[in-house]
Amino acid sequence: MLSERVASWRHVFKLDPNRAISDGALDRICRSGTDAVIIGGTDGITFENTWELLKRVRRYDVPCYQEVSTKSAVIPEFDGFLIPVVLNAEDPRWLIGAHHEAIRLYGRYIPWERVVPEGYVVLNPDSRVARLTKARSSLSEEEVTAYARLAEHLFRMPVVYVEYSGRYGDPRLIRAARAGIVRSRLFYGGGISTPEQAREAARLADTVVVGNLIYYNVDAAVQTVRHVRETPREAGPDALR
Amino acid sequence: MLSERVASWRHVFKLDPNRAISDGALDRICRSGTDAVIIGGTDGITFENTWELLKRVRRYDVPCYQEVSTKSAVIPEFDGFLIPVVLNAEDPRWLIGAHHEAIRLYGRYIPWERVVPEGYVVLNPDSRVARLTKARSSLSEEEVTAYARLAEHLFRMPVVYVEYSGRYGDPRLIRAARAGIVRSRLFYGGGISTPEQAREAARLADTVVVGNLIYYNVDAAVQTVRHVRETPREAGPDALR
Repeated sequence: MLSERVASWRHVFKLDPNRAISDGALDRICRSGTDAVIIGGTDGITFENTWELLKRVRRYDVPCYQEVSTKSAVIPEFDGFLIPVVLNAEDPRWLIGAHHEAIRLYGRYIPWERVVPEGYVVLNPDSRVARLTKARSSLSEEEVTAYARLAEHLFRMPVVYVEYSGRYGDPRLIRAARAGIVRSRLFYGGGISTPEQAREAARLADTVVVGNLIYYNVDAAVQTVRHVRETPREAGPDALR
Repeated sequence: MLSERVASWRHVFKLDPNRAISDGALDRICRSGTDAVIIGGTDGITFENTWELLKRVRRYDVPCYQEVSTKSAVIPEFDGFLIPVVLNAEDPRWLIGAHHEAIRLYGRYIPWERVVPEGYVVLNPDSRVARLTKARSSLSEEEVTAYARLAEHLFRMPVVYVEYSGRYGDPRLIRAARAGIVRSRLFYGGGISTPEQAREAARLADTVVVGNLIYYNVDAAVQTVRHVRETPREAGPDALR
């Protein structure tokens, strides 16, 4: 099952179809030993730029998934589809509205067995995604834990995604998300640029997502694969569950 | 598992703790052969009136579930808890906000194994619940189907609940909800008062909920158990799935 495959990911790269990447850099990313390449972004995502990037990644063996942010860019040729549900969005469009519209239009053609919903908690108020979704992103640890619990138990989401997009996150809030889940997988993404950050994220999360770093230091980005693989995940605070 | 027990329900009564019911009427409801009694409502629900009603129902063997609408009235002694998520609410509080708040306060004490989330689609714009949740309740068949699909596939909800609260629904929209689901159970509630309506609802839905009728014609309400049991559910439109 797809969600089991996703559950095995320790490290993934996220590529933005709206940003240029050289063939050389893409080659290094795709041969890095990462578990998967995710293609997706917030701004300027089109069918054309997504398709172009997918074709280039398809020269490699690495699994390639689309993180869907706009229904007009969906491409069936991906190995699977990650569907973000922004749990702390104040604009219900990003919680459910855009999804409802896409399902209304394409519902009977959606290959649900290749779809993995992600319960996003957006925590960097300055990020583009926070502004777009009007995310209530100044959250206490308790509030983050509650979103994670809600994602797992009320919505049975296979993935809870702590998203800092653009800056490295507060480890206490990543731990707070962990405290809310038992079976769901914890993804962390945002601002990883040093070996220490990659290792810390690997201790706290099941899956570490590296994105932005690819575009300004591909060497360092490739190194995160090793840093994450060398680092065991710390045990969850089961006593709190 | 609780959601399997809920999945076996063909007929249930819903009692409103904020409405008076005589011992005689309650006796008839609880001995009617219904699969379960649900206690819940929209207005004036308190710990006290819920507890009073639960105590009275507990004299009988019938399973008794709480449909939670306010965190201050939750009572652990119920057999299980149904948690409505109003999918077509324009006010995100009824989609996720109230749930997040309750989970933040009580999260670690919630017996999730006894909780069944319900994906509500509220379709009577004149109902109290539609006004409270600011439900976008004038929906096309396509839109209802899309909400049902979303509930099953994105949120993995065991129950999709078509709610007309106060008047009998449009069979085309109940069928539209059915067309969107494969594994989730379809609940129908709202305005059932005649044998014909009970039978039609039983053909269209997995579980028929009878509420209001209890309070003005308990004889007719008790009869709905038989009407529902005698009626097979019609086959789903699998070709559309």
